[in-house]
Amino acid sequence: MINLGMASLRLCAGLAGRWSGFCARSLRTLSGMTVSQIDEEVAKLLQLKAQLGGDEGRHQFTLKTAKGTRDYNPKQMAIREKVFNTIISCFKRHGAENIDTPVFELKETLTGKYGEDSKLIYDLKDQGGELLSLRYDLTVPFARYLAMNKVTNIKRYHIAKVYRRDNPAMTRGRYREFYQCDFDIAGQYDPMIPDAECLKIVHEILSELELGDFRIKVNDRRILDGMFAVCGVPDDKFRTICSTVDKLDKMSWEDVRSEMVKEKGLSEEAADQIGQYVSLQGGMDLAERLLQDAKMSQSKQACAGLTDMKQLFSYLQLFQVTDKVVFDLSLARGLDYYTGVIYEAILTQTGPVPVAAAQNGAGEKAEEGVSVGSVAGGGRYDGLVGMFDPKGRKVPCVGVSIGIERVFSIMEQKAEASAEKVRTTETQVMVASAQKNLLEERLRLTAELWNAGIKAEVMYKKNPKLLSQLQHCEDSGIPLVAILGEQELKDGVVKLRTVHSREEIDVSRAELVEEIKRRTSDI
Amino acid sequence: MINLGMASLRLCAGLAGRWSGFCARSLRTLSGMTVSQIDEEVAKLLQLKAQLGGDEGRHQFTLKTAKGTRDYNPKQMAIREKVFNTIISCFKRHGAENIDTPVFELKETLTGKYGEDSKLIYDLKDQGGELLSLRYDLTVPFARYLAMNKVTNIKRYHIAKVYRRDNPAMTRGRYREFYQCDFDIAGQYDPMIPDAECLKIVHEILSELELGDFRIKVNDRRILDGMFAVCGVPDDKFRTICSTVDKLDKMSWEDVRSEMVKEKGLSEEAADQIGQYVSLQGGMDLAERLLQDAKMSQSKQACAGLTDMKQLFSYLQLFQVTDKVVFDLSLARGLDYYTGVIYEAILTQTGPVPVAAAQNGAGEKAEEGVSVGSVAGGGRYDGLVGMFDPKGRKVPCVGVSIGIERVFSIMEQKAEASAEKVRTTETQVMVASAQKNLLEERLRLTAELWNAGIKAEVMYKKNPKLLSQLQHCEDSGIPLVAILGEQELKDGVVKLRTVHSREEIDVSRAELVEEIKRRTSDI
Repeated sequence: MINLGMASLRLCAGLAGRWSGFCARSLRTLSGMTVSQIDEEVAKLLQLKAQLGGDEGRHQFTLKTAKGTRDYNPKQMAIREKVFNTIISCFKRHGAENIDTPVFELKETLTGKYGEDSKLIYDLKDQGGELLSLRYDLTVPFARYLAMNKVTNIKRYHIAKVYRRDNPAMTRGRYREFYQCDFDIAGQYDPMIPDAECLKIVHEILSELELGDFRIKVNDRRILDGMFAVCGVPDDKFRTICSTVDKLDKMSWEDVRSEMVKEKGLSEEAADQIGQYVSLQGGMDLAERLLQDAKMSQSKQACAGLTDMKQLFSYLQLFQVTDKVVFDLSLARGLDYYTGVIYEAILTQTGPVPVAAAQNGAGEKAEEGVSVGSVAGGGRYDGLVGMFDPKGRKVPCVGVSIGIERVFSIMEQKAEASAEKVRTTETQVMVASAQKNLLEERLRLTAELWNAGIKAEVMYKKNPKLLSQLQHCEDSGIPLVAILGEQELKDGVVKLRTVHSREEIDVSRAELVEEIKRRTSDI
Repeated sequence: MINLGMASLRLCAGLAGRWSGFCARSLRTLSGMTVSQIDEEVAKLLQLKAQLGGDEGRHQFTLKTAKGTRDYNPKQMAIREKVFNTIISCFKRHGAENIDTPVFELKETLTGKYGEDSKLIYDLKDQGGELLSLRYDLTVPFARYLAMNKVTNIKRYHIAKVYRRDNPAMTRGRYREFYQCDFDIAGQYDPMIPDAECLKIVHEILSELELGDFRIKVNDRRILDGMFAVCGVPDDKFRTICSTVDKLDKMSWEDVRSEMVKEKGLSEEAADQIGQYVSLQGGMDLAERLLQDAKMSQSKQACAGLTDMKQLFSYLQLFQVTDKVVFDLSLARGLDYYTGVIYEAILTQTGPVPVAAAQNGAGEKAEEGVSVGSVAGGGRYDGLVGMFDPKGRKVPCVGVSIGIERVFSIMEQKAEASAEKVRTTETQVMVASAQKNLLEERLRLTAELWNAGIKAEVMYKKNPKLLSQLQHCEDSGIPLVAILGEQELKDGVVKLRTVHSREEIDVSRAELVEEIKRRTSDI
């Protein structure tokens, strides 16, 4: 460490020389320094640091995953696979294609898309080359993909991890690395048809996952903006008042009103008028009533939104999902990029299940204002792709994000509470022996089964005890054991044991594969 | 930019003051500076840089993915899904569980595991908090997982992306972000049984993927080391000579010999003795012969390796895979952590297919010395988990990594060359109409089909032309069209059209679902 050799001494002298100059300059004026000069000096300092041994030896070695991240063990993965299968089946039933994008994007691709949440973006270290950031959601990469590949029509799903340097409350199921599960329809179509399909998808997925009763709230950015306008909210206060309204699922109207008036400086009259509207919930009838409303009908925007809302409900009726969908004027949602319909699904059951996880909820699209029970969210964003297109060409999009992490944790709790064990393998049969020196016969039979497509395991021991082989079946839920012994080999049979009933029968070697398939076909 | 305000001017003066001191100190002696002092100065400079506007405004906006990465479009995803399904089915047939780990690890977890390739690791920016790096492979996170969770027995697979700041030749199919597909068995078992299963798995997967003929080369680190010892290679030259031997799949023996002698300073006699051994290929017979070999038998290590090799081949015979497996003394493989058996699978077919992608080949485990046709590789690494355990407790492991990206590109080329179109959706039926004003009827029928589990699409237009609806079916390979018209509605039927034959029949509404299932059951 002390003896750094000639090369470093030369570097040091050189650095010192340059720095004296730099220090003198910076005494005169800051604007005399350019960013690239600073970069150069930083690079030199870091080189010096590396020569001094870098960060090594500073920390004790820590055996952990990064803050806010976790491993998934086999049991969690088994549950995750089941949930993904349900969701992917639904997406495929609706004719969706699948795409994938890199885990990191050019930093500039993400710049200016997330407002003040941009501070939560993970940047990669500048190691020479491009400046990169980990993706924050799947929507912005999707919009970049569409613009870059000049795709104007696509129905796609994308399931992948996203990254947010949040301060997570992990006990509540929030993480810095978590899955998003997005379905989006891009393209210029007749109004409300793709939007209705997104809601149908949420309805199907939440029903099939059996998470308990749920409700899907629907609103429209144009109705919100029109309402703000007719209630006398100044134009420049739309967004901030909108985000206060968004808190209605967690705060009382009194508190929301007080925040509007005292913190945001809204007039009491405007606040009270908003209060009358945001308490309204209904269906197509409400949209019709508001179209007749003396005040609301003054706003062209609101009328456009309300007309579309009526249309949406007519399609939802055809899709038979109006039992769960509510037009709710208090639904606001946080992200700026929504331009039309917005929605959010919540679990209404307040049993022990939904307590655990106020997950990053409905994924990126539920960003702010996620209520505790929120499990899906989304809306229409017709302007985002245009932000990436060199000529600003727009591609209208509507999509939904399933709050999959929250679903996982509900499923995990259900599994915990249930008597039934979660299987982490799909093994159908264990090839075992009761006697010594039968390893080769076990391996031979196992290979026969593998070659016939049977999921089979064999213990990696020369002479395992029968009891430990049976115990492994009990532990991991393997339903059948194929037991070999001298007598069975002589007779050309295998003793097939059903683990749960302990019943054993001899099956001829030739019929073994069919017998195993028959007995495990319902598993 | 020029007017930075009071705060910055104060900072600047402070910095200048500190730096004069620092410059003076560094003139005297370098060892007067500590790493944390450097860190402090770097942080200040970066703060200054941020105030100057950071890197913003430097670059023009670029619409691209990060260097060395790519999007996967729906066609690529469809091929990828097929390949994954084949591989995952095989892993499950062998009773493997699935785990997942975070995409980044604490930097120190990766430190000291990859030798000089550590320079290829992506570090995350220090944004306050832990120092993190993107995972470089799946093996080190697996070892960390085992040690952290005190898992001593597991058979698991893990399919995920890994990251290397390589200078990729993307035309040759190399990327900075790519998938790995690992299967590993951890635990203390009787020798060679899990090792044989790994080779059986490679055999099954390569056969099922139909990539053409292949060969699996096998060797053992102990045999290599023993061979080097008896040939007179000095101990400290084992690794470097090993990596030269590893080039035998790309270079002639003359060139390898010359590198050993001229670049690595090995004696000519030693090189020639190695030359005699590394030309040997065979099976169990070769292992037996070498056990009798006057020189080789002097090395205890070599004898242990050769005895295990015999044992391995006896198990491979039971698994019926010896047709493709060759004991090849020239197989060396790059990574340091191997302690026993090593193997690598290559495609032997030299048609147009294998030209394209010298992919990161057999994943992490094929790291160096990947031959052009390499598609899988792995080996035994009994010491890696112990590097993470606080008490150094070892967990013996053996595993294999499928060079999945190379497989993808072969499959993509095959698809390109084939007349058959790759379907990117699984849609069974398109709900269409020949007449106007039937949108509602179309939506109603589509929902009926979705609810019955049929994969159905409908155009998002009020009055699409029949021709454009049929064209969409042609383009995306949808086999059936359910056509609604006034007459069909009146008769309670649907006209079911088979796209490829253009044959049409009337099917009663009640029987439609069954009829669609029947006609698409073989798709």
